[in-house]
Amino acid sequence: MLVSRISRLLKGRLAVNPPKPERKKIREAVADLKRRRILEAATDLFYDLGFTNTTLDQVAEQLGVTKPFIYSHVGSKSALLGEISSQGVQRALEAIDQAIAMDGSPGEMLARFVPDYVTAILRSQKSIAINIREEKNLDPVDAARLAALRQQFMGKIETLLSRGVESGEIRVPDTRVAAFALVGAVSWTTFWFHPAGPLSIDEISARMTATILNLTHTRTVSKAVEDA
Amino acid sequence: MLVSRISRLLKGRLAVNPPKPERKKIREAVADLKRRRILEAATDLFYDLGFTNTTLDQVAEQLGVTKPFIYSHVGSKSALLGEISSQGVQRALEAIDQAIAMDGSPGEMLARFVPDYVTAILRSQKSIAINIREEKNLDPVDAARLAALRQQFMGKIETLLSRGVESGEIRVPDTRVAAFALVGAVSWTTFWFHPAGPLSIDEISARMTATILNLTHTRTVSKAVEDA
Repeated sequence: MLVSRISRLLKGRLAVNPPKPERKKIREAVADLKRRRILEAATDLFYDLGFTNTTLDQVAEQLGVTKPFIYSHVGSKSALLGEISSQGVQRALEAIDQAIAMDGSPGEMLARFVPDYVTAILRSQKSIAINIREEKNLDPVDAARLAALRQQFMGKIETLLSRGVESGEIRVPDTRVAAFALVGAVSWTTFWFHPAGPLSIDEISARMTATILNLTHTRTVSKAVEDA
Repeated sequence: MLVSRISRLLKGRLAVNPPKPERKKIREAVADLKRRRILEAATDLFYDLGFTNTTLDQVAEQLGVTKPFIYSHVGSKSALLGEISSQGVQRALEAIDQAIAMDGSPGEMLARFVPDYVTAILRSQKSIAINIREEKNLDPVDAARLAALRQQFMGKIETLLSRGVESGEIRVPDTRVAAFALVGAVSWTTFWFHPAGPLSIDEISARMTATILNLTHTRTVSKAVEDA
């Protein structure tokens, strides 16, 4: 029954009656799924062929749908680029927001944030590469929105580092430059990480986390107690 | 007299007699100057307009020369891209080679290398951005040559870090990941450094050096002696 309902929705038929809450949920899930699949296909094509060389027809063909289907779900090719380009920073913001929201000291928050952040970046490898390469092709409104998100992200890291310096758990010579160094070290993984390489995302994340905590000389309160 | 000799060379006239050593030096200096000016103009245009949108006619126009002049000094547009793209890693290699050649401990070598490296990268900002953005437009031979240079560079840093770990001056959880983190932190400056911003190249270099030595927990022998 669920399957037939999804398949009806996939065919684009609208319910005549106002949707029940549960039905609406499914509709949203289906819309999400469609958007996600379109974004994935576009990411692969933009990554392999470049934004300029990719047509929406190619994206549609990959998914066995029509171009109007793409338009109706994600808008123009330019809108697609805007959305793909912002994926990395959006996931990075989620990672820092979740860490800040936890009940813990700044050092503990950093120790929670870094592995989540590295994992998010490694999983967003293609979209980050696209973001960097295709910056000139971004709609100016998207470019400004992205710059604001990045600034927000950098500000949150800097604040977290400053709080850690105050609590004595973190030791860095300059919180702003340390924030940039941290983000640079992690973002740069997109240039050397090979999904088919010897190390898994989890292994790289663990090693990079240890390296970053080395960079920030982070000792959480519990560690400090152990050492005392 | 020097001026007239240079101007003769600039007009492309060849001496009938074999060049005297001193004359040859000037000729080489002039050829270097021409190449450098062509590379600078091409770097600005590739950076501002993108490689695909730039023509050799535009490069020639910027310098008040002809397209054949460009061809004779640096070859094709593709050769120009290859040369520009390799500038960053070439300067980085010079920095590590100079540090390794010095008479000192691994920690001292690292402390010498990092500021030179940061400065080299900040000065190569445009060519590094071009290198990253235009990777797909590189001639495969140039791309392979560049990959080899990068691998050489990474290997030298990793070796230096390992030697520092052995000497007890450097403390990192994983020399390979630390090498990538170091290079990432420094290379990422090309995305946030503004030449017209509040901090000069020297100031950023000093702060980034302190941050990197924090990352590697570097204590040179002399520092260790002080602390003992």
